[in-house]
Amino acid sequence: MTSPASVTVVRAIKVRPDRHTEMPEHVATEEPMEIRVGGPGQEPSPLAVTMRTPGHDFELAVGFALTEGVTERTGVAGVSYCRSPGDQLGEYPGESRLDDGSRFNVVSVRLNRAWHPAGPTRPFAATASCGVCGKASIDQVEVRCRAVPPAAPVKATVITLMPDRLRSAQRAFRRTGGLHAAGLFGPDGQLWCGREDVGRHNAVDKVIGATVLDRGALPTGDDVLRLLAGSVLMVSGRVSFEIVQKAAVAGIGTVAAVSAPSSLAVTAADRLGVAVLAFVRGHTFNVYSHPERVVFDPDG
Amino acid sequence: MTSPASVTVVRAIKVRPDRHTEMPEHVATEEPMEIRVGGPGQEPSPLAVTMRTPGHDFELAVGFALTEGVTERTGVAGVSYCRSPGDQLGEYPGESRLDDGSRFNVVSVRLNRAWHPAGPTRPFAATASCGVCGKASIDQVEVRCRAVPPAAPVKATVITLMPDRLRSAQRAFRRTGGLHAAGLFGPDGQLWCGREDVGRHNAVDKVIGATVLDRGALPTGDDVLRLLAGSVLMVSGRVSFEIVQKAAVAGIGTVAAVSAPSSLAVTAADRLGVAVLAFVRGHTFNVYSHPERVVFDPDG
Repeated sequence: MTSPASVTVVRAIKVRPDRHTEMPEHVATEEPMEIRVGGPGQEPSPLAVTMRTPGHDFELAVGFALTEGVTERTGVAGVSYCRSPGDQLGEYPGESRLDDGSRFNVVSVRLNRAWHPAGPTRPFAATASCGVCGKASIDQVEVRCRAVPPAAPVKATVITLMPDRLRSAQRAFRRTGGLHAAGLFGPDGQLWCGREDVGRHNAVDKVIGATVLDRGALPTGDDVLRLLAGSVLMVSGRVSFEIVQKAAVAGIGTVAAVSAPSSLAVTAADRLGVAVLAFVRGHTFNVYSHPERVVFDPDG
Repeated sequence: MTSPASVTVVRAIKVRPDRHTEMPEHVATEEPMEIRVGGPGQEPSPLAVTMRTPGHDFELAVGFALTEGVTERTGVAGVSYCRSPGDQLGEYPGESRLDDGSRFNVVSVRLNRAWHPAGPTRPFAATASCGVCGKASIDQVEVRCRAVPPAAPVKATVITLMPDRLRSAQRAFRRTGGLHAAGLFGPDGQLWCGREDVGRHNAVDKVIGATVLDRGALPTGDDVLRLLAGSVLMVSGRVSFEIVQKAAVAGIGTVAAVSAPSSLAVTAADRLGVAVLAFVRGHTFNVYSHPERVVFDPDG
């Protein structure tokens, strides 16, 4: 079930106890897709923007419209890509044109009956007028924040201690096996704040909110931005665009993860001054952006 | 970092090769929380509803407002629970009143300056007038669909084959380690359709969309609803409320998962006629709702 665009090749530094090597790595592609809906004779209206892996886009659009109550099983008249309103392309079953890349990030679902969105009933992220694509998504974040400033690098041997320290603070996970965790660590590897949630973005927001509300062992005062630039946000799962966005807006210089990053997370981190470290397991991890935030010292 | 409400106890049937036993199980609590924002003298306006694990709610609200660009680090004047507009309770730091339960699912962030939402800039799910709580969320789904009708039960031994079959179809995951998967299985354990995505909800929507677009080995025609009621949607991760919602609206009778369910997933599945099977690993799994959809036959 892989389409050509579902995997992206990026450069990564593989950090091992005795050496580090730069090499190509495969990451899952993440790109925004806007879903529009319209009835007979109607201009399709935006329903939602979702960050997705390209491929099976028509199924995604129709499945979303069905499960969110916009249409019924028999109510779909057609599906198509459209570069701009009225510019209908790739009429179903022409999904093979997807390889044309980010021009195909808007999909319209045509219904058998008229559609009147009943107010702001569903998530909808407004999109830049320049289009729906990863670059536009990063542009929107750059409007909100500058790149995270430089800071003293963190030792690789300190990074590899963080997963265990985060796990030991995951009280509810141990009882349920069902919670994501996020932790903010100082440059010396001290856990400043750990939080859990069924939603991984929520766990990150809780940690960042704690830095605003001056709770516990967190940095406060005028130096907070300088301290955050040298800190590490560790997540128990994967690194998506949205996690990098949240770190950048909060001024956190490094995002580390037990699992994999997405393509757009890496691109965004590169632009926003954030180091992305992933597959932090045992004594090893990969660096996907801003390696100057890590000291690769074999002697620790 | 556990608050009293972050874990919920439910009844589950532990299915083992030689026996099955009903016993209490801990699951992560999932409840909606509405975040409102207002400046000096302004009535707080809804910003977003997020499904979250209760606890550290003020941090979540402030962190979300910061990372979504609504406020800056120094722009937060206060945080509070409010049962209804103007009914301010639990003014920060009074978060300990959270244990009062679902009455505390609306949090207001007061800014130092006036706030004017610039159009539909962020996800916002409209909430029922009866309040923001798990029950209201399920009510909203029930407006969209009836409970999934009964169907012939699936053998427990067939369920335990599904994770390997789904994994063997995860082509992109093998290359990236960074994708969620969803698969729709027939009652005999045949994989009808498997899809991958960086977003787990997207993988589910792709599979459901495929059933609408009549692709591949999927059921078609008049019997599609009867066939779907007896089918199993398997996901590679956890089962949240939203996954159960999507299955119910699509008419799928069983959701199975490699990992854990949330509290609201179980409650919703119970009401919507969906069986939730979780921790499907090796020859064992747990049943959290509608056990009549599974045959616990020790002889297979």
